[in-house]
Amino acid sequence: MTLLPDLATQIIIPACAIVGIAFALVQWLLVSKVKISAHQPDAKGVGVTEALIEEGEALADHSVVGKCADIQSAISEGATSFLYTEYQYVGVFMVSFAILIFLFLGSVEGFSTKSQPCVYDKSRLCKPALATAVFSTISFLLGAVTSVISGFLGMKIATYANARTTLEARKGVGKAFIVAFRSGAVMGFLLAANGLLVLYIAINLFKLYYGEDWEGLFESITGYGLGGSSMALFGRVGGGIYTKAADVGADLVGKVERNIPEDDPRNPAVIADNVGDNVGDIAGMGSDLFGSYAESSCAALVVASISSFGVNHQLTAMLFPLLVSSVGILACLLTTLFATDFFEVKNVKEIEPALKKQLIISTFLMTIGIAVVSFVSLPSSFTIFNFGEQKEAKNWQLFICVAVGLWAGLAIGFVTEYYTSNAYSPVQDVADSCRTGAATNVIFGLALGYKSVIIPIFAIAISIFVSFSFAAMYGIAVAALGMLSTIATGLAIDAYGPISDNAGGIAEMAGMSHTIRERTDALDAAGNTTAAIGKGFAIGSAALVSLALFGAFVSRADIQTVDVLTPKVFIGLIVGAMLPYWFSAMTMKSVGSAALKMVEEVRRQFNTIPGLMEGTVKPDYATCVKISTDASIKEMIPPGALVMLTPLIVGTFFGVETLSGVLAGSLVSGVQIAISASNTGGAWDNAKKYIEAGASDHARSLGPKGSDPHKAAVIGDTIGDPLKDTSGPSLNILIKLMAVESLVFAPFFATHGGLLFKIF
Amino acid sequence: MTLLPDLATQIIIPACAIVGIAFALVQWLLVSKVKISAHQPDAKGVGVTEALIEEGEALADHSVVGKCADIQSAISEGATSFLYTEYQYVGVFMVSFAILIFLFLGSVEGFSTKSQPCVYDKSRLCKPALATAVFSTISFLLGAVTSVISGFLGMKIATYANARTTLEARKGVGKAFIVAFRSGAVMGFLLAANGLLVLYIAINLFKLYYGEDWEGLFESITGYGLGGSSMALFGRVGGGIYTKAADVGADLVGKVERNIPEDDPRNPAVIADNVGDNVGDIAGMGSDLFGSYAESSCAALVVASISSFGVNHQLTAMLFPLLVSSVGILACLLTTLFATDFFEVKNVKEIEPALKKQLIISTFLMTIGIAVVSFVSLPSSFTIFNFGEQKEAKNWQLFICVAVGLWAGLAIGFVTEYYTSNAYSPVQDVADSCRTGAATNVIFGLALGYKSVIIPIFAIAISIFVSFSFAAMYGIAVAALGMLSTIATGLAIDAYGPISDNAGGIAEMAGMSHTIRERTDALDAAGNTTAAIGKGFAIGSAALVSLALFGAFVSRADIQTVDVLTPKVFIGLIVGAMLPYWFSAMTMKSVGSAALKMVEEVRRQFNTIPGLMEGTVKPDYATCVKISTDASIKEMIPPGALVMLTPLIVGTFFGVETLSGVLAGSLVSGVQIAISASNTGGAWDNAKKYIEAGASDHARSLGPKGSDPHKAAVIGDTIGDPLKDTSGPSLNILIKLMAVESLVFAPFFATHGGLLFKIF
Repeated sequence: MTLLPDLATQIIIPACAIVGIAFALVQWLLVSKVKISAHQPDAKGVGVTEALIEEGEALADHSVVGKCADIQSAISEGATSFLYTEYQYVGVFMVSFAILIFLFLGSVEGFSTKSQPCVYDKSRLCKPALATAVFSTISFLLGAVTSVISGFLGMKIATYANARTTLEARKGVGKAFIVAFRSGAVMGFLLAANGLLVLYIAINLFKLYYGEDWEGLFESITGYGLGGSSMALFGRVGGGIYTKAADVGADLVGKVERNIPEDDPRNPAVIADNVGDNVGDIAGMGSDLFGSYAESSCAALVVASISSFGVNHQLTAMLFPLLVSSVGILACLLTTLFATDFFEVKNVKEIEPALKKQLIISTFLMTIGIAVVSFVSLPSSFTIFNFGEQKEAKNWQLFICVAVGLWAGLAIGFVTEYYTSNAYSPVQDVADSCRTGAATNVIFGLALGYKSVIIPIFAIAISIFVSFSFAAMYGIAVAALGMLSTIATGLAIDAYGPISDNAGGIAEMAGMSHTIRERTDALDAAGNTTAAIGKGFAIGSAALVSLALFGAFVSRADIQTVDVLTPKVFIGLIVGAMLPYWFSAMTMKSVGSAALKMVEEVRRQFNTIPGLMEGTVKPDYATCVKISTDASIKEMIPPGALVMLTPLIVGTFFGVETLSGVLAGSLVSGVQIAISASNTGGAWDNAKKYIEAGASDHARSLGPKGSDPHKAAVIGDTIGDPLKDTSGPSLNILIKLMAVESLVFAPFFATHGGLLFKIF
Repeated sequence: MTLLPDLATQIIIPACAIVGIAFALVQWLLVSKVKISAHQPDAKGVGVTEALIEEGEALADHSVVGKCADIQSAISEGATSFLYTEYQYVGVFMVSFAILIFLFLGSVEGFSTKSQPCVYDKSRLCKPALATAVFSTISFLLGAVTSVISGFLGMKIATYANARTTLEARKGVGKAFIVAFRSGAVMGFLLAANGLLVLYIAINLFKLYYGEDWEGLFESITGYGLGGSSMALFGRVGGGIYTKAADVGADLVGKVERNIPEDDPRNPAVIADNVGDNVGDIAGMGSDLFGSYAESSCAALVVASISSFGVNHQLTAMLFPLLVSSVGILACLLTTLFATDFFEVKNVKEIEPALKKQLIISTFLMTIGIAVVSFVSLPSSFTIFNFGEQKEAKNWQLFICVAVGLWAGLAIGFVTEYYTSNAYSPVQDVADSCRTGAATNVIFGLALGYKSVIIPIFAIAISIFVSFSFAAMYGIAVAALGMLSTIATGLAIDAYGPISDNAGGIAEMAGMSHTIRERTDALDAAGNTTAAIGKGFAIGSAALVSLALFGAFVSRADIQTVDVLTPKVFIGLIVGAMLPYWFSAMTMKSVGSAALKMVEEVRRQFNTIPGLMEGTVKPDYATCVKISTDASIKEMIPPGALVMLTPLIVGTFFGVETLSGVLAGSLVSGVQIAISASNTGGAWDNAKKYIEAGASDHARSLGPKGSDPHKAAVIGDTIGDPLKDTSGPSLNILIKLMAVESLVFAPFFATHGGLLFKIF
């Protein structure tokens, strides 16, 4: 019934994943050609080549290279050691939660090993609930481990690339751009390909047991999404607290009190700050987007398994979500070549357009890709499960569903760019408001963030309406997949940001010249915008994903309607809408408190270590690293518990209706705060950079560094730090994690939930 | 069937209203005994008495009294002239919107004058849709006019009392407190009693036409709520922009740049700032709470009219909502005596407890009042309309519904006090974070606001659950009424705040001593907390009111369920949740821009008027007043249009399902932003006052005025201004206004709505 035979599907998916991994390795190889150790045998050869380059600033100066190598290894060690500590704690949680999943789901049928009637088609026999418990637990662990690996590998390549970017910046901004971008691509492709491959293998292995019981098979697979997202939660929150405690602490004493530049090596918190970029923005972001990807695939698969694809056992159609992702890898691969090989960034002004082009090209290519996949892998007509009934759908409709998600992502990306790049009036207005001090800067910045929500929400609403109308929850799940289909490119341009940020830090610490620092600053300013775009994608896709998961949960929990005007649902709705505030209060307070501790330590070092301000004595970096580590490990637990326990408590005590309300409320409220927080923060950061760069008359009238408007801008930037890097981006995990958790536990809630209302 | 005969009901309601008005007049009389003109015949006599008082500071100094009189009349004239200008613009809108209501509602049956089958009971004949159109228009205008009068009278008494409070402050803090509090009470009682009386008269007059058609009668009466709230919207937004533009502008140049004290007469924006308190915090708040009161009464009445009360024409039971309000006036009257007559405030520390006691006493008294009303005016068993069916309810259940709202209000009040008063650790922590500068202050303040949402939301959720479970939408409407039943006391302690603020301003401008200023500052600090509590009530009640209105709308529009998982509803939900952000972006940007203009003007005056800084030449106050006036008139239109047009556009083009989603979304999202914004702002203001007052070792370690932590605190305070006085409190009008508008236009939407989906 589909043009593509099942065998071809079974080959194409792993093949694309392997191509993605291979491409990532090639990029890594290219990055590794930038030699960082001054003591390597070919150092001399490099020196000779370098002498030929025009911008020759101490290219052969081995001491600079050596310094960079030292700083890099300090950052890399700090990041690795933090992640190990984090993973130890998270590992304990992972195992405990795995046991919980097994017990909750196993108890649904009292741990019986007998086959039972299927949930949706009662006439057939399905595997026992115990099997779902076992396999959900396995897929949960699998998702968690893959998420950890995704984050860890991203961090590794980022800390491998940062000093290399700095060194290449000596040769020009274009060279540095390529290194940073290639490294981002390594992360993007590894993550996209790994996520796909592991999921593909898991499905095939689980199938050995489940056989024809696809309903049970794909229900168990949803554990993969839960595992991915719960690791992402801790990665985002822990990493976010780590990075911002260090950043805020370093800035408050260094820039504001001591008047030394950002990333000055005399600042004791500078290493912690640079480590933070890697564990928060890189590892956290990687886990986050992997989670979204895993969840949207799982949401689509679980709905498909009870639609005609699953009921009629059409393997190719069933694996449509994986095929979309496979083609996505190829489209992104082609797109990457446009940045690295087909065109070249020659000056500072070309950086942002080059990154923007990546978004546009990948979207265009992918539109074609989706069209091809939709027509070859789907039957021309089929049915989709829609809350108890089967709804007719066509393959061209599914094409539109995926495409509308993809293009909504692009729209969100552009709007985000408009509101956070200092090339446009919104950020320039914010910078201008610094004339009258920090207060107006903050007022304008908050207003900008609020305003930036409007168009993304309309874009999401339109995607939802179109995809829901065509193919119910399945449509929404594949729209989310569409938005994430260019994830490799999205992650590449996103990871590029923190790498450039680190590169700037290393340049400053290694005492490189002002020119180099200007180049890395230009890379970094573009990085702030792409980071905001990346967050926009993460949030937009999270909204779609969690709606799809929510829909799947409602079906699985056998709720007929989620009627707002029933008290059980409405109280869920209003409490759910409150959760993002509660969560943000926790994370922001954590950053604030940790930053205060950091400030005290940094002040102590400046006051008590003689020779520190003069640069003759090295500060005690390790203590600052420890403060960030301890704070983030300790402080990530309460917000993590809030998110992980809410669905369990609400479902168990208040039942599935109230839980539905909570999911809907947290979704519609969380999306708004997440978008506004991350855009406000991005805008403040770039308003500050706009004044510092002084690229226009207007900008120069506000500067230079150290002027009153600049000081006001620094305050805005500092406030924006926890908003854009801790609370904002964690919120998208909150909304999707609660949804996927509810789905995984749905069998339990449907059987044993709502204790409180049962008692009274 | 009820213990209370109908005739008694008809007497009790107007009697209580008249008692309320009389009590307000008595309070006014008492306030007027403080003589302000130095040239009055008994000035000498006053002088003699005053000489006996210990704190005798220039009590007989006629020049101070004269100065105060001058400043007061300048403020009063400024406020009156602004309100006249505002009402002119609003008047045009009012007439246009009245025409719109008539045309939309008239068109439902094509302007036919024939009777038609009733909406809920098709077997009977009801008055034509044209009658609903005519009477809705009339009640809309009535509500609008009453709202305007409420705001205007409040402003009048406040500007009458401010200088009197200053003068009394010479005799001690207790005397000043009594004057400020009595004046607040004048406003509270006038408003509560007027609102009740006008509604009561309107019902009786409309009844002359409608006769036994109570369904039509009370459907038309909902226009009263719409009128009240639409005026409140403009009052809040216009007044909010006015006051904060002046405040922010005055502070940024005066306090930050020129280092002169707050309210210094040399500051050109100082009169505009003081005018702003009266038009924003007083007139705006008055209109706002009147709107909530009118709407919750209308929501309860419209549901009652289709329940057994209305169907069986039980007048006393039908007027239960008005009886609750009547008893509320009496309970508040008694409560007021506790502050003015039974106890006396002797020192600064007793101010806040005295105000807090008001809340507690009124709640206790009112609980008894509600119990009495519920048992005498309701049959022991009756039915309540609940989405198409009649639900059994008992009178004790209704008692619980009203009481749960009342007590939830108290809980919200206490939580607000805890988070915004500088007697507790949250505000002290925020003050402490000023050590490390403005950035940490803002981070901690935002986190505090987010956290302060948690308990109020649970309180609201519990009220909703309990009242919904007992008596469906009627239960929610009366819960809202319960929360507002102590409105006279609530408004008294709320209006007290801006009056004290003004009193402080007048003391500063009249050049009175530091002691006097300290006393007025202490009054003002308590006022910040009560203002936050007042906003908490306004927001909490708005949430309940709008849910009740929403329920009534759903019934009237004949929607079966508002299922979140239908695309039409969900897109409404997510877009609705976005509206508060859009609205806040507009209002905050407006304040920011207007403040920038104000800053430029104030700077210009300081730079170009010789002798201004030395105090030898008076500044040009009028230009600053004009800037605030022009900005607020111009800038209130776009946010006003957003709120007023959204239901019309969504209902007409997307239909009632999407509109339901929008209402639910804006409700659950708006409540959170409103609470967090107003508490964050209140906390920053009091953190600043905490440092300034230096009442503890901790506070002194952060001060004195002019220290770095104090400067950081001033920045926080300035950022909080638009949050707590412009965008935050306007949001509660947004949510309830959209709901009441939808209800009024429901007949039209149900007949002609959803054009877009009908076409495609």
